[in-house]
Amino acid sequence: MKYPKALEDLIDSFSLLPSVGRKSAERFALYCLNRLDEAQIIDFSNSLIGITKDIHICSSCGNISEKDICSICSDEKRNHRQILVVESIKDLYTIEKINDYKGIYHVLNGAISFSKGIGIHDLNIDSLVDKVKNNEVDEIILATNATLEGETTARYIKELLSEYNVKITRLAYGLPVGGDLSYVDEMTVLKAFEGRHEY
Amino acid sequence: MKYPKALEDLIDSFSLLPSVGRKSAERFALYCLNRLDEAQIIDFSNSLIGITKDIHICSSCGNISEKDICSICSDEKRNHRQILVVESIKDLYTIEKINDYKGIYHVLNGAISFSKGIGIHDLNIDSLVDKVKNNEVDEIILATNATLEGETTARYIKELLSEYNVKITRLAYGLPVGGDLSYVDEMTVLKAFEGRHEY
Repeated sequence: MKYPKALEDLIDSFSLLPSVGRKSAERFALYCLNRLDEAQIIDFSNSLIGITKDIHICSSCGNISEKDICSICSDEKRNHRQILVVESIKDLYTIEKINDYKGIYHVLNGAISFSKGIGIHDLNIDSLVDKVKNNEVDEIILATNATLEGETTARYIKELLSEYNVKITRLAYGLPVGGDLSYVDEMTVLKAFEGRHEY
Repeated sequence: MKYPKALEDLIDSFSLLPSVGRKSAERFALYCLNRLDEAQIIDFSNSLIGITKDIHICSSCGNISEKDICSICSDEKRNHRQILVVESIKDLYTIEKINDYKGIYHVLNGAISFSKGIGIHDLNIDSLVDKVKNNEVDEIILATNATLEGETTARYIKELLSEYNVKITRLAYGLPVGGDLSYVDEMTVLKAFEGRHEY
């Protein structure tokens, strides 16, 4: 016995989400049916349509925006000659939260992954290379994740831009602030050693 | 810095789902934005609206249905004098899957819970009591969960119907088939002892 079609459709939709299997999708769909009122479901439905209509990808940096150019790229007070490269929009927001960085961003929308078959040309990289070519940039700060994929991506980008006159830096690895040394993984300790400085 | 409003709205909607916190909701919303194409999002949106339009709650038993009376309640071949009482639609579907039970159902849509402030009158129970009162039922099988809430609910219903001439049974507790005794919790072993029978 199957659920009514309308419910099956909703289960299929929830199954599209990351790490949501059939069981969780069923739970979400039944929850919508039993616990949300009609107004909440209509709002939910509209908010999905909303992101297809009201959100654009900034043509300059790949950030999300309500306009064609995002609020960061269109902010004249920021340093447009310093570009911080991140894998995802979420990373960009993480850095914005510390309220310290005053340059602009470039969102790759992914990282090179051999296992997933993602190469450099699947990433949002062309507009970054163009900016460097046109001599619009002083410094590229590579802030891809400290994972195999993030590291590979950082190296590729460094290689790609090596012929141009641009300073390329990478965020420091090291011990997390407030962390207990005994809980930190070996790779991080090793990186903290490599990056040690006079005190 | 906040996300664009359309994205914040979608994050709020995903946060309504059970055991989905702000972080997961953010991940779901960004996934929709980055990884689903427009057609998938529109389907998702429509499937939400679909459940408000195309799914009804069976006025007889509380099951979900495309019509006012569900396919089980309108099935003349089933025994309408035997009613199996479950907490949720999901439980109903679990029992339907074994393809053995030939009576009808009654979905309480919850269980009595003092901690959540859910009493007997918050449950879908009136139509069940009416059927018993009108002498339409031979047997009520209580299949609420083997939890504190489910057990309390079963006892309440038994109490409520005690004055009427109806047989009330409860699904058996015991060892799960195929289970290793050493992995079974003590309460279940105890219940299995209580319910032991001549062999």
